[in-house]
Amino acid sequence: MPKITIAQNILAVNENVAQEIRQTLTSRNIHTINVMSSPGAGKTTLLERTIERLHEQIGIGVIEGDIETSNDAERIESAGAETVQINTRGSCHLEAHMISDALTQIDLTNINLLIIENIGNLICPAAWDLGEDVRVVVASTTEGDDKPAKYPQMFALSQVMIVNKIDLLPYVDYDLQKVRRQALAINPNLRIFEVSCRTGEGLDAWCDWLTTFTQSVQDTRVEQNII
Amino acid sequence: MPKITIAQNILAVNENVAQEIRQTLTSRNIHTINVMSSPGAGKTTLLERTIERLHEQIGIGVIEGDIETSNDAERIESAGAETVQINTRGSCHLEAHMISDALTQIDLTNINLLIIENIGNLICPAAWDLGEDVRVVVASTTEGDDKPAKYPQMFALSQVMIVNKIDLLPYVDYDLQKVRRQALAINPNLRIFEVSCRTGEGLDAWCDWLTTFTQSVQDTRVEQNII
Repeated sequence: MPKITIAQNILAVNENVAQEIRQTLTSRNIHTINVMSSPGAGKTTLLERTIERLHEQIGIGVIEGDIETSNDAERIESAGAETVQINTRGSCHLEAHMISDALTQIDLTNINLLIIENIGNLICPAAWDLGEDVRVVVASTTEGDDKPAKYPQMFALSQVMIVNKIDLLPYVDYDLQKVRRQALAINPNLRIFEVSCRTGEGLDAWCDWLTTFTQSVQDTRVEQNII
Repeated sequence: MPKITIAQNILAVNENVAQEIRQTLTSRNIHTINVMSSPGAGKTTLLERTIERLHEQIGIGVIEGDIETSNDAERIESAGAETVQINTRGSCHLEAHMISDALTQIDLTNINLLIIENIGNLICPAAWDLGEDVRVVVASTTEGDDKPAKYPQMFALSQVMIVNKIDLLPYVDYDLQKVRRQALAINPNLRIFEVSCRTGEGLDAWCDWLTTFTQSVQDTRVEQNII
């Protein structure tokens, strides 16, 4: 079937570019995370809070993906990280060639952690390797507790799940244990953090993990049980 | 560029199938809405509450799109509407041929209102005509008040916007007037309803509009200012 062949070719080209990115970043000892979620789960706010806490210890660069607007990039830059905005003008996910282009706009010399904020979409970004080391999926308590079961690929291919907006738990019908069970059934190695970017609850544990990850020697991270 | 040509061909084929669906449904006096949103904005709960209120007056059929699971279809069927589940197994949007197949599974004789619940995705479904009369985008107060600006195509191509979860307004930073302004700047004809599916607030106005829409003679709806 021609449609499938074309899709496979596009993904194969993407995979090659992603591998080049991965080699470039690894050779510079830059650790990279690809942050994905539904629209409005709180990716940008999570990054603001994270960067505010870590930017004095760690050199952080951010690639900010959005369909339109540069609002999020401005917020991230104010928090203290060098930021490049990608506007996809309609495309529902980032692709490796976009990251490759964006990297030419960042001074990589002083960066140890590269954060890619993907387009707000719980489906399409999962299929596209961007050369990251770790994929982080952000779920929020206001989205309903059926998301891992309904969007399994995103949770299967991530290493970290952050449940955001736990301050709103008293006001919504959201069973945190059910979400943990669903997510771990799909991906038993998923590392889970529960946070509120509004109150700050849980952010220490996430930032501690991110710091350890960033300071690790990349080839020994699995042995060290960091990812 | 071959990639663009292929995409255009696929969309042109979709458009033809959508037009056939539209003609079939119009000839049977069936009014159709295509309901779209981010994951977790509350589409299924909105449909449950809507069907519970209207199913004794209006014959309602539902086509329920999900990547995986039939949980939502079971919820909708319990509310009182004949329901067909489409599982796309990874595809991020519904396409017209899927609707065409689903329609063979519904007895159209007693239906006046067909509701299509699209995949939870604020981007890709906007590009695909399903043969509907009206597109309804559901936004929720927990997603942040920047969604019309960040995902303009969805709001530009919809006729109705429902802002859901207004019961949570005291607990989130969400400027309802800003969202209205953003959305109307993109689409001045957008009809806006503000509701809470949890408390029931605002649902009367939405159900009244839907009833009027369903009872209208289709060719005169624009003249009558219903859509």
